Amino acid sequence: MTVSLPSFAQIQDAAARLAPHARVTPVLRSDALDALAGAELHFKCENLQRGGAFKFRGACNAVWALDEASAARGVATHSSGNHGTALALAAATRGIRAHVVVPEGAVRAKLEAIERAGAVLHRCAPTQAAREAATAQLVQATGAMLVHPYADTQVMAGQGTLALELLAQAPALDALVTPVGGGGLAAGVATAAHALRPELALFAAEPAGADDAARSLARGERVTDVVPQTVCDGLRALVGEPNLQALREHRVEIVTVSDEEAVEAMRLLWRELKQVVEVSSATALAAVLKAKDRFAGRRVGVVLTGGNVDLDALPW
Amino acid sequence: MTVSLPSFAQIQDAAARLAPHARVTPVLRSDALDALAGAELHFKCENLQRGGAFKFRGACNAVWALDEASAARGVATHSSGNHGTALALAAATRGIRAHVVVPEGAVRAKLEAIERAGAVLHRCAPTQAAREAATAQLVQATGAMLVHPYADTQVMAGQGTLALELLAQAPALDALVTPVGGGGLAAGVATAAHALRPELALFAAEPAGADDAARSLARGERVTDVVPQTVCDGLRALVGEPNLQALREHRVEIVTVSDEEAVEAMRLLWRELKQVVEVSSATALAAVLKAKDRFAGRRVGVVLTGGNVDLDALPW
Repeated sequence: MTVSLPSFAQIQDAAARLAPHARVTPVLRSDALDALAGAELHFKCENLQRGGAFKFRGACNAVWALDEASAARGVATHSSGNHGTALALAAATRGIRAHVVVPEGAVRAKLEAIERAGAVLHRCAPTQAAREAATAQLVQATGAMLVHPYADTQVMAGQGTLALELLAQAPALDALVTPVGGGGLAAGVATAAHALRPELALFAAEPAGADDAARSLARGERVTDVVPQTVCDGLRALVGEPNLQALREHRVEIVTVSDEEAVEAMRLLWRELKQVVEVSSATALAAVLKAKDRFAGRRVGVVLTGGNVDLDALPW
Repeated sequence: MTVSLPSFAQIQDAAARLAPHARVTPVLRSDALDALAGAELHFKCENLQRGGAFKFRGACNAVWALDEASAARGVATHSSGNHGTALALAAATRGIRAHVVVPEGAVRAKLEAIERAGAVLHRCAPTQAAREAATAQLVQATGAMLVHPYADTQVMAGQGTLALELLAQAPALDALVTPVGGGGLAAGVATAAHALRPELALFAAEPAGADDAARSLARGERVTDVVPQTVCDGLRALVGEPNLQALREHRVEIVTVSDEEAVEAMRLLWRELKQVVEVSSATALAAVLKAKDRFAGRRVGVVLTGGNVDLDALPW
């Protein structure tokens, strides 16, 4: 099955669908972090989005894009956490059921959040193959509509609304950085951002221990034999095929960061920006601090993707 | 020396003085916390203020209210932390020197912040008497102007600007809750809030281990023999005389909370609102959750006073 990238019109439609349900998240600044980076950083705080992550945008758009008959059979997905919560919350806004396949080893706080949001949990082994197989089986059994976490047109369109919002809040940006895991956010944001501002420089931060997007771009085809080994639990998914295509088309530059750099950036965001953010989110700041020459003196949008953290298991 | 309470006009003047320097902090919401409280909570995020606490408002107003000659001799204060950072940052906005007397045992992260902000640190024993003596000596020696952390008209006026801002952002509030330590915030906010909305119900949250304000109101005079024993390091100061007067005049109801309740509320704020806040700040939410009948079904402004936390010494 080929999944097409969203058009700018589909992203605008998504923004209209989301308006009654999603939050307009604030953009925060920090003098101390600006000084550290030598740049003007505008942090888009999706940790303050419903469900504590940007994922609500894509999930909610996918749920409300369904026709009545499909919606009635519910939705299903696999997720290491945030997409699962998001889909559960999104399903609830339409009064339909959500099934979520979760890999063993996922962050406890995220699993609790998915259950609190009202989803039915289904456990599986922590591999991409096991996740996809369990989800396929579930879809077969229930007739629920699969909402893939990132390789889905409406999900990418929903994530793209973040860029519309950020560029309205901080119109003079020179560059924009998101983390990249499966690439739903990176693809949606690249499409939306370049439709509005073709000259914007786009970056994606990727953990060294799950650097399949960087390898895929370097090799010119999707690399699928990477076994993710990173503390960034939200970025362990392999980049999707349409997502990779978007990264290529929009010349998104990947910055690879170590787990240590991500954890240090996480501490900085907690200490200076006073935001509870996940280590996966912090890769974006880690990338800015690592590739300093790319950002020096520029106005940089930094997307903080989520804030669902197990407060009893902080990574420092 | 009698310190008078600020007039509403002085609070408005303070707002004008602060405008070029202070941040307009956001007001955040949480569905989960609303559900827990059974009320509509509007969190005023002063953890996002410059210096990471509301204290910048009062300090900055005091610094800019000085005449040229006084300002040139610098400013001095004693502080367990946030007021010290605030005064250092405020002094820097005017290019003058700040001396800060700090008690032994203060939170390390706060002392580092005071030094980073450019103040000269002077250490003393952790008692009210030692703090006041050391500060008096310092003022004598340097000619610096004392900016008391709370029993100061311009400081109270500066803190009061928070209420002007909050009532513009969330005009339909029924009630407002601040923590109370020395009472600078509580006094300024009560004065400003009641000038704009005389019917607003005002509450102050106080740790059980430093409940001198509650005792003082009950006894009808300032109680000064309380030895503070609480994890809420920002609320260990004894309520000031003019501050107590403001609490009385504005019929501010004190809600006493235990350290355990404050720590639990702190965790909730981190988990649900994704805000790094101090345990002292969390007393305000703890009060709302404890005195539920006071707030049920109402629109409540909850002031989150600061976010300067030692990330290596979390209280859970």
